[in-house]
Amino acid sequence: MPSFRITVAYDGTDFVGWQRQANGVSIQGLIEDALEKIDGRAVAVAGAGRTDSGVHALAQVAGFTLERPMPADVLVRALNAHLPDAIRVTAADEVPPSFHPRFAARSKTYRYRMLNSDVASPFERRYAWHVPGPLDLEAMGAAARILDGQHDFAAFQAAGSDVVTTVRDVMTSRIAECGLRIDWGLAPTAIRTPQSAMLCYEITGTGFLRHMVRTIVGTLVEIGRGRRPADSIAQLLVVGDRALAGPTAPAAGLFLVGVDYGPVCS
Amino acid sequence: MPSFRITVAYDGTDFVGWQRQANGVSIQGLIEDALEKIDGRAVAVAGAGRTDSGVHALAQVAGFTLERPMPADVLVRALNAHLPDAIRVTAADEVPPSFHPRFAARSKTYRYRMLNSDVASPFERRYAWHVPGPLDLEAMGAAARILDGQHDFAAFQAAGSDVVTTVRDVMTSRIAECGLRIDWGLAPTAIRTPQSAMLCYEITGTGFLRHMVRTIVGTLVEIGRGRRPADSIAQLLVVGDRALAGPTAPAAGLFLVGVDYGPVCS
Repeated sequence: MPSFRITVAYDGTDFVGWQRQANGVSIQGLIEDALEKIDGRAVAVAGAGRTDSGVHALAQVAGFTLERPMPADVLVRALNAHLPDAIRVTAADEVPPSFHPRFAARSKTYRYRMLNSDVASPFERRYAWHVPGPLDLEAMGAAARILDGQHDFAAFQAAGSDVVTTVRDVMTSRIAECGLRIDWGLAPTAIRTPQSAMLCYEITGTGFLRHMVRTIVGTLVEIGRGRRPADSIAQLLVVGDRALAGPTAPAAGLFLVGVDYGPVCS
Repeated sequence: MPSFRITVAYDGTDFVGWQRQANGVSIQGLIEDALEKIDGRAVAVAGAGRTDSGVHALAQVAGFTLERPMPADVLVRALNAHLPDAIRVTAADEVPPSFHPRFAARSKTYRYRMLNSDVASPFERRYAWHVPGPLDLEAMGAAARILDGQHDFAAFQAAGSDVVTTVRDVMTSRIAECGLRIDWGLAPTAIRTPQSAMLCYEITGTGFLRHMVRTIVGTLVEIGRGRRPADSIAQLLVVGDRALAGPTAPAAGLFLVGVDYGPVCS
């Protein structure tokens, strides 16, 4: 009865999210279906974090136990043979049966991509939020850094959530220019809109509330547009009122980048 | 009766290609439909180059004449309001009525993207050919450079083509590592497969035969895999037999990067 940990990349656009649901195709459901074909019986798969519909993962982590032993590289190839090409298993390793991808995680990192350009890009519509117009990147950066540390993130969770505590530890919260997916710049005749930059917001923390990253990003964009001051984010942490934060940014821009299990289990 | 030149970016995955056809949705057809709504009558649109189904464009160029005058920036916004987000008009300018995007073009540049990695990427499946296994980039580069200059490209056109001459002028033909679309590298836990690189083949020429770039790429990959020597590409130019060239590479990796009209009309 070997237990495995797998790393999974997926384009979340065409799925209902990580978690298996009664209606719609989920990533968890497709992996469980693939494992049932491989192992010959129903297999329960646990994930490190639930991602919503349209949210992507570069390195989601999942765990499960099989009936039969199997070399890790054979398992990777067998899973990929049964999964659609929007989902790829990139690694697998055997772990102690006690391993649980959520409880063993020390931290998770999410990245949110924003395309700041006059005209949207056909190649980024599935993977970034199109934010036209000037943005004050310095103000956004200052606001992002305020979230470092332990805070009550009640203002940044989806309305109607019911969790024991809304206090979370954030190790890093920063925003920076990052690369465009299609290398527009190489050719002499490539598109150069007057203003075109990809911005990435990246946050690492011990845990995340529902819609937390997307609500932070919606608030950061309001700060970038000068509609609220950078330090208003500090007041939101104190007051804790979701109605005072910015809108929830679209799912397409969000990526679960990775999960950290520390040196023992990495 | 003002005439316009527009620059168009599109994700070709879900279309039958540039050219309007009896069955299926084409980029030309969608632009003509949008212009009919804007101008109130049928408008014929000419493109600089036909792209096949699944082939993309960073900066395709099209030309047409409207009944009514219209500022160029208003035209851009009106077109984008009527087009799906897989197609974006990035620029428009008024041109002399004699302008024809194909006949006025001095050269066109195409780029073909190959993902050389053990496991395919969910984020590149629409925009690159997944080529696993070791590749001899030096041999591919040497072979690519042999295509520089004026040659008979009969060996690199789709079987059954019927054109007056298969001689074409190539200004540059080169292959190099280029960027990944999703910035995997930034985060500590991002995916690092043992071998993962994006390769770009880029070719600029006065004209292209049907499937010419994709057949060149299929042949270059055979050279990269050591299945044929780099200088076999010189023999293909002399012998001119399509059956001796490599397979046609998939459409997904191909981008029309841009069209050069020289200093007068740029």
